[in-house]
Amino acid sequence: MEYRIGKQYETWEWKHSGPAPAGSQAEIDLRGSFQGDGKSMAVKGFYAGNGEYRLRFLPEAAGDYSYEIVSDSLGIRESGVLHAEPADAGRHGPVRAKGTALFYADGTRFASFGTTVYALANQSEALIEETLETLGEAPFNKLRTCVFPKHYAYNANNPRFYPFEVKAGQAQRAFSAEGLPVFPTRKGIADDYWDTERPCFAFWEHLEAVLQRLDALGIQADLILFHNYDRWGFSNMSREDNLRYLDYLLRRLAAFPNIWWSMANEYDLCFDKSDEDFRAFEAFIAANDPYGHLLSNHNCFQMWDASRETVSHVSFQTKELTRVAELMRKFGKPVLVDECRYEGNIPEFWGNLSGQDLVRSFWRVTVQGGFCTHGETYLPETPQGKLATRTGEKDVVWWAKGGRLNGQSPERIAFLRSVIESLPGPLEPVEGGFPELAHLEEEALRETIARFPEGFQSFLGSIARMNRLERELFYAVEYNYEGHCGDSAFLSYLDDQCPAVYEMKLPEDRLYRVDVLDTWEMTRQTALQGVKGKVRVKLPGKPYMAVLAVAEELGEEEENG
Amino acid sequence: MEYRIGKQYETWEWKHSGPAPAGSQAEIDLRGSFQGDGKSMAVKGFYAGNGEYRLRFLPEAAGDYSYEIVSDSLGIRESGVLHAEPADAGRHGPVRAKGTALFYADGTRFASFGTTVYALANQSEALIEETLETLGEAPFNKLRTCVFPKHYAYNANNPRFYPFEVKAGQAQRAFSAEGLPVFPTRKGIADDYWDTERPCFAFWEHLEAVLQRLDALGIQADLILFHNYDRWGFSNMSREDNLRYLDYLLRRLAAFPNIWWSMANEYDLCFDKSDEDFRAFEAFIAANDPYGHLLSNHNCFQMWDASRETVSHVSFQTKELTRVAELMRKFGKPVLVDECRYEGNIPEFWGNLSGQDLVRSFWRVTVQGGFCTHGETYLPETPQGKLATRTGEKDVVWWAKGGRLNGQSPERIAFLRSVIESLPGPLEPVEGGFPELAHLEEEALRETIARFPEGFQSFLGSIARMNRLERELFYAVEYNYEGHCGDSAFLSYLDDQCPAVYEMKLPEDRLYRVDVLDTWEMTRQTALQGVKGKVRVKLPGKPYMAVLAVAEELGEEEENG
Repeated sequence: MEYRIGKQYETWEWKHSGPAPAGSQAEIDLRGSFQGDGKSMAVKGFYAGNGEYRLRFLPEAAGDYSYEIVSDSLGIRESGVLHAEPADAGRHGPVRAKGTALFYADGTRFASFGTTVYALANQSEALIEETLETLGEAPFNKLRTCVFPKHYAYNANNPRFYPFEVKAGQAQRAFSAEGLPVFPTRKGIADDYWDTERPCFAFWEHLEAVLQRLDALGIQADLILFHNYDRWGFSNMSREDNLRYLDYLLRRLAAFPNIWWSMANEYDLCFDKSDEDFRAFEAFIAANDPYGHLLSNHNCFQMWDASRETVSHVSFQTKELTRVAELMRKFGKPVLVDECRYEGNIPEFWGNLSGQDLVRSFWRVTVQGGFCTHGETYLPETPQGKLATRTGEKDVVWWAKGGRLNGQSPERIAFLRSVIESLPGPLEPVEGGFPELAHLEEEALRETIARFPEGFQSFLGSIARMNRLERELFYAVEYNYEGHCGDSAFLSYLDDQCPAVYEMKLPEDRLYRVDVLDTWEMTRQTALQGVKGKVRVKLPGKPYMAVLAVAEELGEEEENG
Repeated sequence: MEYRIGKQYETWEWKHSGPAPAGSQAEIDLRGSFQGDGKSMAVKGFYAGNGEYRLRFLPEAAGDYSYEIVSDSLGIRESGVLHAEPADAGRHGPVRAKGTALFYADGTRFASFGTTVYALANQSEALIEETLETLGEAPFNKLRTCVFPKHYAYNANNPRFYPFEVKAGQAQRAFSAEGLPVFPTRKGIADDYWDTERPCFAFWEHLEAVLQRLDALGIQADLILFHNYDRWGFSNMSREDNLRYLDYLLRRLAAFPNIWWSMANEYDLCFDKSDEDFRAFEAFIAANDPYGHLLSNHNCFQMWDASRETVSHVSFQTKELTRVAELMRKFGKPVLVDECRYEGNIPEFWGNLSGQDLVRSFWRVTVQGGFCTHGETYLPETPQGKLATRTGEKDVVWWAKGGRLNGQSPERIAFLRSVIESLPGPLEPVEGGFPELAHLEEEALRETIARFPEGFQSFLGSIARMNRLERELFYAVEYNYEGHCGDSAFLSYLDDQCPAVYEMKLPEDRLYRVDVLDTWEMTRQTALQGVKGKVRVKLPGKPYMAVLAVAEELGEEEENG
């Protein structure tokens, strides 16, 4: 009977030395079961190379877990107690969805402000260090990043490590980007080069070190498990290989507190995988992740269906930023706009937004109660990208490889984050607005209109003359960005509107302080105090303003949000 | 046999004195027929008050027209020849549609750059003068303006004249705006107050003087015949009264060269009129306007069906500015975005765009080959509206009443107009772009995709996974604004994109000069000369840029555009 010490919300690791596995080095026979916190959990161990076996567990409660670790092939049957000490200050556990919001395991609200460095772990150590240093000063608390290396524009380099060893008998290949198209246009030819039974242990240790460094910075790793921007042959492995890869990855990483699973970058451009493949991956991950980390899938065109219970949140690439509230209502899950174009100046249309426009996107999404993800694509040889990496490497664009940030948006995203974190709770979209009429079929529309006061019905009848498609297109470009936290806070983002006066309707039974926010200049000034009901707020008549009304006396529960 | 002298493209007027009509003063028996220019045209005369009868004709050719003017009740039968002298320089005749473009009768291209002063003719003389003075210095060549007075926010005043006399036996009413809602929410009660048989001649003479002043400024009058923003009882007249009003209006105004008929401002909010009413008006105007002036109808929500031959162009209130090319293709007619919000700072969301945003709207619409209409709504008591009217009148907002312009957009619209008028011909949208896939139903989509090169088909197949609605919403916010004049000019507007480099694909068989335009700073600089095929243009990496490639040697026909 062993007695081990761990810590709440931190990965506990069990190690064992023995002979290397005779067969697969990925799917080995090493199982643990943990009883504690009112639950029983099954976890799998992994082979880490050099005759070392490991098994990881993440205790989410302080106190004792009784455990048993078993391997028939290794002849192991260890029983013990893991005593988890209470979490250190600042450790909150994994982030999970609750309704349309996100919370850490300890109940602390998590407002996601993501960024994107797709091929971070596949860069030089110097560049990874610089990127982590940049992240330490940036406002981002989530990072979208890939396991596999990436072949694409601004992504021409080979990684230091690959996740698997080459199959016995295969000649070592050179992977030059020369002359290859950056964009996958057709199915790849499945081949037999990588040996998924033999993980490259150096790769995984290196990846884990990066993920742990992110954790130390308070950054969630939204880990992208598959993508199609590939010249090495990882995008066209067999389903069996893909599942073996996932199994090994889950054995190693599931006990990390800051991990999220993003099945793909642009799953619908993964031409060598079917929806059935991805549903199989989804089911496999859900069944083999004992902690239920956040799990979603990122699209190029068609959003991944978020209705299944196994999908924790919407991870939507979209420029349709008026749809956040609609999707929150539809799925009752958090909505993350994980790609909405990037601040930058590359020729590609998706990578040359101004700082203003990306900040606008963040506000539009966030005020509805959704979450938005940043990316930056300034060319290092241009004035806008002049803070090129200090490593001396060429063609380092943040969204691809990391380095330093040049944009005007991060500072403003930090301001937005401070505003959002000052609220008493997560934002929800305002209910009952005209844009909701867009999504109704004819009969439901008629019924809804009939519930409005009579004086409104002729007007609404004119809206109803538009068919569903016309209504959707109408409200896609005519939208008010508003959210609220119950009746304790109301936030309106005025976007491109420049009124000299803004009218707001607050509840009559509480008193509010109304602040005017300049989202670009990052100022916040109190305009009114002790007001209720219909209020008029003077504004400077310029774009990118927001108005925030907060109840002057918050209850205790509200303050803890 | 009379011999009369007129002038090509100018209204010729025949006068006759006699006793006032015994019955209707609107629908009188006075008819003319004119033979000339290979056509026979029937026109109707009108009673102008004070025992004066008039009949107007617009000769569109230089040379002789033989005519006959007949009235049985007045005992008139006059035959004669109208000799139309050739048009003065700068006189081009009525504007008409040809395909998706607009041309004056003499073949000169007309690129519409409209503005909006809804209640111009119903203001004080001093304010009308000031407005015309402003228009004389502004870039606008079309004005949307109403016949009837307007009751709405920023439109509280009574006009000097009403179009009809009060019915005999009716007590004179006072029309105060006090306490009335500005927005029509339900059907009005039809009453019997205005006598459409008895036009108020002073009203019509005054309106005509304003229209003629616009003509002298080279401005087309897009005359709005009905609207619902009313407290006087003009919006809820009977169909018979409405048709009599139209008949009288056509008798007086059809021979004006600069007139366009806009059946309504927001026809679908005219709760006292049905679509059948408007179709009856449309048919009546088409049948009774001998000159076939431009005729359309302006919506709030549901676009008026522009498929009938009697509708000359699309007059669309919309913020869906990506739809211009689609509508041009669908109807084969000019597409005018006659309301896309206004530059201003009023609280109403439709009237507080920044100058940048309105200029953006103009470019987005215009580059596709459409036409856009301006409006300005700055509050005179705010810094942004400080050039209030010099008349001393209160609450004068340009879009409602005129006065002086404060905005930043007119200067930039002038720049756009100079660019467009420098082109060798009207712009057409680029064909075959991905956004066109948005509008196809499943089968047509599959067939279209099958015609693309094989390497593209997987990618396009991913687009096709989205249903029609999803595709429409996708391309509504992901759009490239491009137009061309055959292969002699190619214009791209980069909107919010800020690339450091722009790639353009020009034909291989001509040489082009490529200019870089800053649409906000109003600069135009030549970047490349003598280029063809795929070209890369360096850009400053800021928003609101455009790139224009013009063939270096234009043929004679192209130069005349």
